[in-house]
Amino acid sequence: MDAERITEQVQPVRADRLRAFCQRVFETLNVPAEDAAITADVLVAANLRGVDSHGVARLRRYVNGLRDGMMVAKPKVQVVCETPTTATIDAGAGLGQPVSYRAMQRAIQKARDLGSGFVTVRNSNHYGIAGYYAMMALEHDCIGISMTNADVLVVPTFGRNAVLGTNPIAVAAPASQERPFVLDMATSTVPRGKLEVYQRLGKPMPLGWATDETGTPTTDAGLVLENFKKRAGGGLLPLGGAGELMGGHKGYGLALLVDVLCAVLSGAAYADLVYPKTPDGKPLPSNIGHFFGVWRVDAFRPVEEFKAAMDDLQRRLKNSPKAEGQPRIYIHGEKEYEEAERRSREGIVLEPKVVADLRAIAVELGVEYDLE
Amino acid sequence: MDAERITEQVQPVRADRLRAFCQRVFETLNVPAEDAAITADVLVAANLRGVDSHGVARLRRYVNGLRDGMMVAKPKVQVVCETPTTATIDAGAGLGQPVSYRAMQRAIQKARDLGSGFVTVRNSNHYGIAGYYAMMALEHDCIGISMTNADVLVVPTFGRNAVLGTNPIAVAAPASQERPFVLDMATSTVPRGKLEVYQRLGKPMPLGWATDETGTPTTDAGLVLENFKKRAGGGLLPLGGAGELMGGHKGYGLALLVDVLCAVLSGAAYADLVYPKTPDGKPLPSNIGHFFGVWRVDAFRPVEEFKAAMDDLQRRLKNSPKAEGQPRIYIHGEKEYEEAERRSREGIVLEPKVVADLRAIAVELGVEYDLE
Repeated sequence: MDAERITEQVQPVRADRLRAFCQRVFETLNVPAEDAAITADVLVAANLRGVDSHGVARLRRYVNGLRDGMMVAKPKVQVVCETPTTATIDAGAGLGQPVSYRAMQRAIQKARDLGSGFVTVRNSNHYGIAGYYAMMALEHDCIGISMTNADVLVVPTFGRNAVLGTNPIAVAAPASQERPFVLDMATSTVPRGKLEVYQRLGKPMPLGWATDETGTPTTDAGLVLENFKKRAGGGLLPLGGAGELMGGHKGYGLALLVDVLCAVLSGAAYADLVYPKTPDGKPLPSNIGHFFGVWRVDAFRPVEEFKAAMDDLQRRLKNSPKAEGQPRIYIHGEKEYEEAERRSREGIVLEPKVVADLRAIAVELGVEYDLE
Repeated sequence: MDAERITEQVQPVRADRLRAFCQRVFETLNVPAEDAAITADVLVAANLRGVDSHGVARLRRYVNGLRDGMMVAKPKVQVVCETPTTATIDAGAGLGQPVSYRAMQRAIQKARDLGSGFVTVRNSNHYGIAGYYAMMALEHDCIGISMTNADVLVVPTFGRNAVLGTNPIAVAAPASQERPFVLDMATSTVPRGKLEVYQRLGKPMPLGWATDETGTPTTDAGLVLENFKKRAGGGLLPLGGAGELMGGHKGYGLALLVDVLCAVLSGAAYADLVYPKTPDGKPLPSNIGHFFGVWRVDAFRPVEEFKAAMDDLQRRLKNSPKAEGQPRIYIHGEKEYEEAERRSREGIVLEPKVVADLRAIAVELGVEYDLE
């Protein structure tokens, strides 16, 4: 019986089925069909690319957000400022994915017309993987950029409390024979999920990932996670770790840059204001900001020349001698493309607790469940 | 006598005198007056901001470059591609500073007209501090960005040889009561100069700054510097250090991004092609690339709102609790602004070997020397 259940749980799910399920869930929660399809696609794209932390494991949060009114199913989306190459959009507290998809489309159109286009979004929610939107530029022979601010988890250099998010930066650039370059990185050394893994394993984590409540680096992942819950201080360290010795001030600067471009420029909330609460501690709708940008390659150089040079650059890196004991040098995005090809073919294996969660959502909402 | 000489050597130099001296040097080497003034200003700005490694200590390299024909004093600068919001400029192997100054001016003009502007430069040389050009946007109430690729010193994650430069990224954004945010960071953990300091002191450097010729992290700064000379392998590590454990692949990705935007997009040399040599090892003119960008703040949001939010964001960070033993949290650019104010007032103290070098240049070129 147990063996059967385990087999059942690790049965891979086809991406299209997972997408259709998520779409039904969103539609049941009054999200318009097109918005539901976009959001489902962004979630499943994360699973396909191997970024399971940002995939359907997050569906529960969106379901809860839509149910308790923290996220608006049919938001009033408004362009609040526009020039030939820029725009700022108010997302009306709706889901982050549909507004981000359309913001990126708008940036692409501006770049097609005039060479470059940039759109910021305010009053939004978690938008999934940053890379999804950057990659939308690729089929137009454009370079895409996507950033978002996020829940406060990261301590500034020399600080004791988390005041910034893991604020990711994604950039995608096309190539010819080689795969596109797709950088998609949080500006913290590691995401919170990495600490959860070390806590589960009961393993000390490396010094330089996070600090305790005094602002001192610690190896105790459980302590840091507990401190997050209690808002006791400490948090994740920016890329480069604690202090300035290993460049932690640079990771801190990148996180701050993301807050400037996503939130200060758009009019969204920044720093510790991102997830506001009432005076008695009840959560209020978040006001996350995003930043999207597009450069048309042939506004600088003929596309074929650019792509040939992208191929050559990648090959120079990949074919250069390896460090002792290392079989391979990667280009950013390469691992994810390989994983997406494999998972498109073989299906997506979800963790048992994610499967249980999806099943529970189906029951709660009376949505057909056909993933097993 | 010795005491007197030391006193003489640490005598601070006024910025305007240093600037005038550099300008005379460049003009003597047939650089047009305006180009000489721009280049001198960029060099002395580095000294004022406390970035002495990029200040007049580099004058010797420019002098040698101009004398031996590796840098062209009166280059043929050409706009090779242009759209309403973008341009690519061929610098004609001239000094990096004048073409970069004018490229940034052009990007600012495009942003003033249409909201954003981006200019790449190819066939250029070392352009000094990246932040100088980003900061040019500030007085126009714009956000400025500046990047350059650079001499090959950085090993990719899992690589054995240096294939990328320290490829800096600079971004400047205006504020109101607070100082502007000015991020200006190499994408390596530390610059080569840091290793030279540790070598002089005979101190082991932290693991995670650089690797030996097998690609293994080392604490021996002298070994790494020696390996650079012998082209024996190893080099500086990207921000985040060796491997992926502390995020080294992110620093590597940022360095690669800079190569894509500065060189692949402009048609400049990238990776290990930046400083080419003849088959028998003689240096050829370098073909460095730069990338400049400008966003007009009010193309997204009213300037006063943006600046007020910049002030508030900075204060939230600076006023947040400090890590144990830390007196202060900094905003990027703050240290440099404070240093520039102090040095503008008190003068610039040059290292004795830099003073000796400037004196020697004056003698060689028959230029008046009035810095002591």
